[in-house]
Amino acid sequence: MSDPSPAPRRTLSVGRVEAFSDGVMAVAITLLVLDLHVEVGKESLAEQLRQNWPSYAAYAISFFVIGVVWVNHHALLSLLRATDRTLVFYNLLLLMFVTLLPFTTSTLAAYLREGGADERLAVLLYGAATEGMAISFTLLLRHMLRHGLVRRTPSREEGRVAVRRFGVGTVLYPIVTAIGLLSPGLMLLFYGLVSAFYMFDQTPVLAADS
Amino acid sequence: MSDPSPAPRRTLSVGRVEAFSDGVMAVAITLLVLDLHVEVGKESLAEQLRQNWPSYAAYAISFFVIGVVWVNHHALLSLLRATDRTLVFYNLLLLMFVTLLPFTTSTLAAYLREGGADERLAVLLYGAATEGMAISFTLLLRHMLRHGLVRRTPSREEGRVAVRRFGVGTVLYPIVTAIGLLSPGLMLLFYGLVSAFYMFDQTPVLAADS
Amino acid sequence: MSDPSPAPRRTLSVGRVEAFSDGVMAVAITLLVLDLHVEVGKESLAEQLRQNWPSYAAYAISFFVIGVVWVNHHALLSLLRATDRTLVFYNLLLLMFVTLLPFTTSTLAAYLREGGADERLAVLLYGAATEGMAISFTLLLRHMLRHGLVRRTPSREEGRVAVRRFGVGTVLYPIVTAIGLLSPGLMLLFYGLVSAFYMFDQTPVLAADS
Amino acid sequence: MSDPSPAPRRTLSVGRVEAFSDGVMAVAITLLVLDLHVEVGKESLAEQLRQNWPSYAAYAISFFVIGVVWVNHHALLSLLRATDRTLVFYNLLLLMFVTLLPFTTSTLAAYLREGGADERLAVLLYGAATEGMAISFTLLLRHMLRHGLVRRTPSREEGRVAVRRFGVGTVLYPIVTAIGLLSPGLMLLFYGLVSAFYMFDQTPVLAADS
Repeated sequence: MSDPSPAPRRTLSVGRVEAFSDGVMAVAITLLVLDLHVEVGKESLAEQLRQNWPSYAAYAISFFVIGVVWVNHHALLSLLRATDRTLVFYNLLLLMFVTLLPFTTSTLAAYLREGGADERLAVLLYGAATEGMAISFTLLLRHMLRHGLVRRTPSREEGRVAVRRFGVGTVLYPIVTAIGLLSPGLMLLFYGLVSAFYMFDQTPVLAADS
Repeated sequence: MSDPSPAPRRTLSVGRVEAFSDGVMAVAITLLVLDLHVEVGKESLAEQLRQNWPSYAAYAISFFVIGVVWVNHHALLSLLRATDRTLVFYNLLLLMFVTLLPFTTSTLAAYLREGGADERLAVLLYGAATEGMAISFTLLLRHMLRHGLVRRTPSREEGRVAVRRFGVGTVLYPIVTAIGLLSPGLMLLFYGLVSAFYMFDQTPVLAADS
Repeated sequence: MSDPSPAPRRTLSVGRVEAFSDGVMAVAITLLVLDLHVEVGKESLAEQLRQNWPSYAAYAISFFVIGVVWVNHHALLSLLRATDRTLVFYNLLLLMFVTLLPFTTSTLAAYLREGGADERLAVLLYGAATEGMAISFTLLLRHMLRHGLVRRTPSREEGRVAVRRFGVGTVLYPIVTAIGLLSPGLMLLFYGLVSAFYMFDQTPVLAADS
Repeated sequence: MSDPSPAPRRTLSVGRVEAFSDGVMAVAITLLVLDLHVEVGKESLAEQLRQNWPSYAAYAISFFVIGVVWVNHHALLSLLRATDRTLVFYNLLLLMFVTLLPFTTSTLAAYLREGGADERLAVLLYGAATEGMAISFTLLLRHMLRHGLVRRTPSREEGRVAVRRFGVGTVLYPIVTAIGLLSPGLMLLFYGLVSAFYMFDQTPVLAADS
């Protein structure tokens, strides 16, 4: 295992960072369901299901938002040859925003029926958490590239492409949030489209597997 | 690692897809317990336990429904040699329906005591989530077979057998749901039998281990 | 990988059974904390903490009960060379009783303050779940031994020792429960002692590592 | 695999101890979010977010407290070559204090708005759980060093450094708690600083990677 390149002093194994991140994201994505519930003895079940549509829409959207984060996180970490504590810190920052999603999702769902200033604030809150994820991702990637934690040094061009690619969310999410201030329903649709874009896009992050 | 067969461009490692899926299913199966509770100061504990029997029955059934999904999921993914983003998307779809189960289970348990249109709707809701799982499974398997993600190309016959086998649920669950519209108690029994069928059935999905 | 011994037809990898079980137990052990809470605006915090002592005692005991199950589960599965669907079923049965513990624990804690028939029933409920775990363990081990799923065939004597050893709980838990019918506080103490016994006992289950 | 050094009789594989610990910590860190919620129909959302600031501050702090525990836990366990049941017991003790954090965090957040004896008790409770973690860590490390569970025997000096390093928390957390009795807001700040210290500190625990 004599690696000729200058390895970071303290390496926390990539595998365990992945395992912990997978665990956190798996719990966060599943906790979303706790916001779905109905109550016997109020309106009819049909009526309740109809009234709660924002909860179901927000549930599905947030499920795929976290799903996409998981896919991108996996793509990013598959490039790593070593970790350091700063990387772990940025990763924790990312995970913190991911775990906030069950909260921002239920808040959004609750106020989506309300309109007015409260609804707009709930939209901003949801947008802030996703923006936090996008920024953490960019910090993570930049740190990886700058501190030689990737498996092979990417060309300048590759690095720029990757930063830009992951940075897309940083720009895209605020736009989607701005749309949400005008029409929250439209925002949910756009989040769905952004997720679909990331999900089906097959461009390599870096040509790491060649 | 020079694999002669034309590998998919971007491969997300099978191991991490399994790990994330295991995590989500482990959380979902354990969250079922949150629907069980009693309250001091109402009826006697014995009386509450007696009245809450639908919750306990639904708990046990859903536990094994998810258990069977986990077993089948494992059997399916053990055939994979590579993944792509579409597969990950279908897998997320499957997981979304799995994570819905704590919600549809508690709704079913709540309305099983009520009868009428609400009870029938709760049955349909439960049936819809399990049907969603069955359909996602079929999509997952078909995608694997069509895009050469399996370890070796199965014979036409094998592929057809596997699709049919996993597709059984797609047909079986609506029938069980239809039964539930007439008698929800009978439905729980049938779900138990379907689970037992899958659990003890030893037919190979594909003869992948030979 | 040509194993000369007659391998079970469909083997679900041991690793993934372990991973899923670890996940379920990790979630169950952590969900115990959801039963701990205080409320601003009622009695003083000191008073609430004092009144809720059964919750804290039950929390600590159940935490170590699950901890011991995890240790024993690990010891048992480290003997496996292969799995089959029946083993997975018994394993699910075990996990179902483990996931019931947050419910039986909170019920016990709630009624420990009440006395009377309700308290005794809560004790029985708690005992029944732990007994269910002990029985599942015995079924699991017996199945492993009978169907040649262990790494090497144990001597008759070894097998008998192991069944007896894991069976201890099957006998011990009902006794502890019986004690609980007379004095629930004493029961908690005994559960603590049983846990400590399993935790510090260093006898090998089977001499599998030699 | 013939290890000449006298191996502990029953070794529970390090990998599974890590996996279980990762799972528990991932669930605990994500459950913190359950304390965040708002309610439609009370004050405006903006007002509620403003009033709940202690919840958000406590959330972020506890997230990084658990994050740091995870990093240190990882560093510690990467030194292990074998485990024994006593180590597993100390590890469970550590995990028990980690899983208490969602409770002590929500209690702290609730009473941070109250002042008086209740607030001070909530601060003490929070401090006690973190102190419990620090003590468990020290027990874990001491046991590892004394019973030859580390990969290579550290020099006396190295061992002393490591014990001291991990013991820092044992001394630091009570001081931070004492500060909290005077000013809870200041305490949160200090917890943040302690976390940052551990996060960015690059000193090796033991020179295990050389």
